[in-house]
Parts: sequence; C-alpha cells; structure tokens
Amino acid sequence: MNRIVFTGEVAIALENKLKNASISDIFVLVDSGSRRYALERLGEISIKHLIEIPQGDLNKSLEQLAFIWQQLSDYGARRNSLLINLGGGMVTDIGGFAASCFKRGIRFWNIPTTLLAQVDASVGGKNGINFNGLKNEIGTFSQPEWVFIDHHFLSSLPSRQWWSGYAEMLKHALLAGREYLTEILEMKEEMIKNDSFLTLIQKSVKVKANIVAADPLDKGIRKALNLGHTVGHAIEEWAIQHGIECYHGEAVACGLLVTLYLSVKKMNFDKVLYEQLKAFIGAKYPISTFLLNPKELYELMLHDKKNEQPEVNFTLLRSPGDVEIDQYCFQDEILEALSQIK
Amino acid sequence: MNRIVFTGEVAIALENKLKNASISDIFVLVDSGSRRYALERLGEISIKHLIEIPQGDLNKSLEQLAFIWQQLSDYGARRNSLLINLGGGMVTDIGGFAASCFKRGIRFWNIPTTLLAQVDASVGGKNGINFNGLKNEIGTFSQPEWVFIDHHFLSSLPSRQWWSGYAEMLKHALLAGREYLTEILEMKEEMIKNDSFLTLIQKSVKVKANIVAADPLDKGIRKALNLGHTVGHAIEEWAIQHGIECYHGEAVACGLLVTLYLSVKKMNFDKVLYEQLKAFIGAKYPISTFLLNPKELYELMLHDKKNEQPEVNFTLLRSPGDVEIDQYCFQDEILEALSQIK
Repeated sequence: MNRIVFTGEVAIALENKLKNASISDIFVLVDSGSRRYALERLGEISIKHLIEIPQGDLNKSLEQLAFIWQQLSDYGARRNSLLINLGGGMVTDIGGFAASCFKRGIRFWNIPTTLLAQVDASVGGKNGINFNGLKNEIGTFSQPEWVFIDHHFLSSLPSRQWWSGYAEMLKHALLAGREYLTEILEMKEEMIKNDSFLTLIQKSVKVKANIVAADPLDKGIRKALNLGHTVGHAIEEWAIQHGIECYHGEAVACGLLVTLYLSVKKMNFDKVLYEQLKAFIGAKYPISTFLLNPKELYELMLHDKKNEQPEVNFTLLRSPGDVEIDQYCFQDEILEALSQIK
Repeated sequence: MNRIVFTGEVAIALENKLKNASISDIFVLVDSGSRRYALERLGEISIKHLIEIPQGDLNKSLEQLAFIWQQLSDYGARRNSLLINLGGGMVTDIGGFAASCFKRGIRFWNIPTTLLAQVDASVGGKNGINFNGLKNEIGTFSQPEWVFIDHHFLSSLPSRQWWSGYAEMLKHALLAGREYLTEILEMKEEMIKNDSFLTLIQKSVKVKANIVAADPLDKGIRKALNLGHTVGHAIEEWAIQHGIECYHGEAVACGLLVTLYLSVKKMNFDKVLYEQLKAFIGAKYPISTFLLNPKELYELMLHDKKNEQPEVNFTLLRSPGDVEIDQYCFQDEILEALSQIK
C-alpha cells in the first residue's frame, strides 16, 4: 500500500515522484485505447519514446512482448531508464513483465486506467502474458516502484468495463466481511463520479494488499484471492477458444457464483445471502452465456496453475470474511454447480 | 555455496536430493551436446519429458525460449514440476530463465557440464537470453534450488573449451589475491583428471559466491565480477556480428588483458606481474584475432548494460585482490589499451 499513490491529479503526483527518482529517461507503454483516452492526463512529462501496442487481451502475447523489448532495446533503454505502463491490466501485466526482464530488470511504474486494473492488477506484483492458449502462463513476480490510482480515468470507461472491475471489488468484499459487502451491494454506478469513490477503491485495494503482504510469493493464504478465479480463468479460456468476448470481471463474477454454490454445499455458507448475491450477480453480468458447456469448463480447470493434484483446487467461504483455501472439489460437484446456477 | 553440491558422483547426489524434494514430475533440458556426452551420467532418474535444443550461444534465443515454454506447457508441467538444466552456460542460462517465468516460476536445478558453467554460471542467479544482437539482454535474477558440480563431466571437454572456463578461474584468482593467483598460473591442463581439481573449482566458486552474497541484485560490489567483461562482452558481440567463433572465456581473457593494461596505467598495478599475466594469456588464448577493430569494439562497449553514463565503466585492479569498481574510462584510453596489447 505504501507504494500506491491515490490521487485525483495524476499529473501532479507523477511530477512529484519524478523529481527525486534519478531516472535517465522515460519510456511510456500504452495500448491504442489508453493512448487516446488517458495519455493526455499525464501532463508535461518528457517522454523519450512512446511504445504502443494493440488493445485487447489477445495481444498480451509473446509477439507483443518481443515488440516491447525490441523498442526498449532499439531506443536505447538503460538500467536506470523507467517504463511507465499506462492502461488496463493487459498493459500493466505485459509492461511489468517486459520491464522485469529487460536487462534483468529496469524500474517500472504502473498507472492503471480501468477499475479492474486499479483494484486488482495494481497490487501483488504479478505480471505476464498468455501463452499456448493459457492465461498468464508466462510471467514473473515483480513489484512496480510506484502505482498511481486516479479515479478520473474511470469516467471514460464504458459501463460494461466498469462492472467488470467491480466484480473484483465484490470479491474483495466477500473476503473482507459482511459490513464492506453490504456497502458494495448497495453501490450504484452513477456514484463513480463522486470523489468518495476513490475511498471505496482504496478500501478494496487494502483488502488485497493485506493478503498479498502475508504471502508475497503466492505459496499459501494468497490463494484466498483466487476466490472465483478457478472457474473464472476457465471461462476466459473457453471464451477465447470459442471467439466469444468475455471481460475478466464477467468471468470472475460467474466464477464467484459457482464458488458460492459450492460454499453453500460444502461449507455451510448462508443460503439467504447466497440467493441475494445470485440476484445481484445475475442482474449485472451475462452469466448464462458462459455456462453453455460445463464439461469443457471442467477440463480447462484441470489446467489451472494452482492445481497440484488432479482434482480442482477451490478457495471457498464459510461466510464473508471466513475463507478456506485448498478445497479440492471433484468432477461431479463442479458439474452440478456449473449446471445449477444458470 | 550451501546450495551447491560438489561431487564426483552426480547420479547419487541427484538421487539423494530428489528423495525429499516432493516434486511431481521431472523435465530435463539438454542441448545436442549434453544429451550425447552428459545425460547418461544422471543415472536412473525418471524423466517425464526431455527437452532438447540445438547447441551454441546463437540458440540462446527468444525462439528457443518459446520452444522450451511450449514443451513445458504441452507436456503438462505444473507448479511443483522440476526443470533440470544439464549442459553448459547456454543451457543453464536459457533453462533458468524459462523456469523462472513458466507459471511465474517453477523450481529448477542446474547441472553445469562445462568448466565455464561450473565456475561462473553456477552462482549468482543470473539467467537470460541474447536479444537484438546483445548478450543477455533479456533475463531475470533467479536462484536454482540446487547446483551439482561434478568434475567428471569435464573429461569430455575439448581443450579449447576447457581453457575458456579457465579464464573465469583466472579472473576469480585476480579478485582473490596473489596466493591463489600463483596456484592458478602454475596449473597444467593434465591435472584436471585429478580429483584435487574439484577442490580448485570449489575454491573458485567460493570467490564468486562471496561477492554475490554481498550484492545479490548487482547494485554495487558485484561489479567486481565484471572484471574483463566490459571488453569481453564487446568482443563476443563483435565476433557474432562478423561470424567469427569466439568462446566466452577467450573474450574474457582478452578483456582481462585490456583491464590489466588500464590498471597499470591508471591504478599503478604491478608492471612485472602484468607482463607475466600477458605472457600467460597470450600463450593460451587467441587474443590478436579479437582486436582487429578497436573502434568497433569501443562502440559496442557503450551499449553494455553496466554503463549508466556515456563513458565506459570498468572494474580495475590496484593489485590482485584489491578491486575498484565504477572506474570510468575515456575513448582515447580504451583505444590505446586495445591497440597496445596485441
């Protein structure tokens, strides 16, 4: 958390940090979207070279990674150069990975411009690319030196993308406890224009930061953050394979619902609260589209990198705030959950 | 050092470590050379999949890296899979990098089979690939869980490769002090068959390990290990560009000589000892081939990733064991050294 700057004025915050950073030159990575909607908010910083990659998770690829390395190398990036990654999680993930390996690691700062990247990719030091049809198959753990979170970037977000990010806030609330969860369930989309929304983001980031701090290399309790993601990642891969557009948070929301169903069955999670969450998620996210083929989803889950055994490893909940990691579930349980919640 | 096993019986040492390692499956990376000359020494371990890449530093490439990732992914490597890298520094470098990024890091053990890899690449956690014509441009710092050093691998090494490794031992001796340096200068090639040579290797590794332990992320005193390498790397790149075969240690030996010349000029290094070292290096390594174009070499040095200023950063010596890092040298000094020592 102490490396994250929450600000309503990112240009000023950036200028302040640059003053004392002894950086030789600045490279900025954008995608076609963040170049259009976000770049001008950085103000007057002197950029040695702007690297632009195409938008979309399909471009979180080895090919684009090689392109970024080529640009850094061709434009003479050195050990004390800085790479600023400006964009959604796709840009901060691939940019963080590129920086962490270029000359065995140059400094990088992340400026996430989507809600999802602000509350999720901003903390934890995970970065990487998709490979061989698998999400984040290749990457490192590597911390950005600074992260700047400015909620003004969010006003240009389409509603669907905004809700995608909100799914991670819902996940954090489920991990935090009932009080924060209530706050999250009562939220209305129009409130994001209020400055108080920056505080709500900060609260969400703190939930994640506390868990990551307890387990920086993802060996134990950090699996709590995997809540909803075992199914979520399978859905995303399934969507890629079938050419269906699916936002990360949409897949996670769907995954959360599966997880909650399993939690009711196996961990005695409150059924009434489950129904309330099911109504909320069902109203906001296109769940049913992603549950067309339970068997295929189950096969994809077996590939997930958190699985060290042939069964599928879930993070489940006894109640909001009471997490159990390493809950292995069997094929029949999973297929039941996938087919019951549509 | 406590992660390095010095042994005359690598198969037994390996079996012992595997017993308690709780590894789900073993992948082994070899190149065409180590498959032929070294693989059988591993004994009866159960290998899930053997990954073979072509020999030679030109294959320490993004293409081969992607091939290794593809093989790991296709053959179902998981978070508790192990990658054993068996071969020279090229194999341990690219294999260590591949493992450190696959699923954000799986465990890897290195079994260096050349003298160079045993005394140099075995310690320090540096790995990587060449990129854009530059040596080790992309990589990470990442420690192998175990390193096995068995001098019996060396009996199949051609003399030229053996001397290449010995150049790093000479460097370590220059960093250690006069006593060990004398031992190194008196060494004869036929002695490598003696078991006592394993002790000499161990001594050499210790010099490096002590320096690395003091500076694991290469921010300061570790630059001592760069002795001879500013010029050495430039020579290697020059050789690649001109299609001339040059072994790493040959380039380093030549680089050491340039460094010693500069040390005499700028640091009052003992002239008599310099002449003795010049005679030794001149007799063992094809120095003159690599000094054909001082100007081109100088240009390549400016690209070296240790340079944070336009002058060239050298590690120099006052005397054996008395090192000064961050000695910036100017074009005329460097060109003089390059043209005087042929």
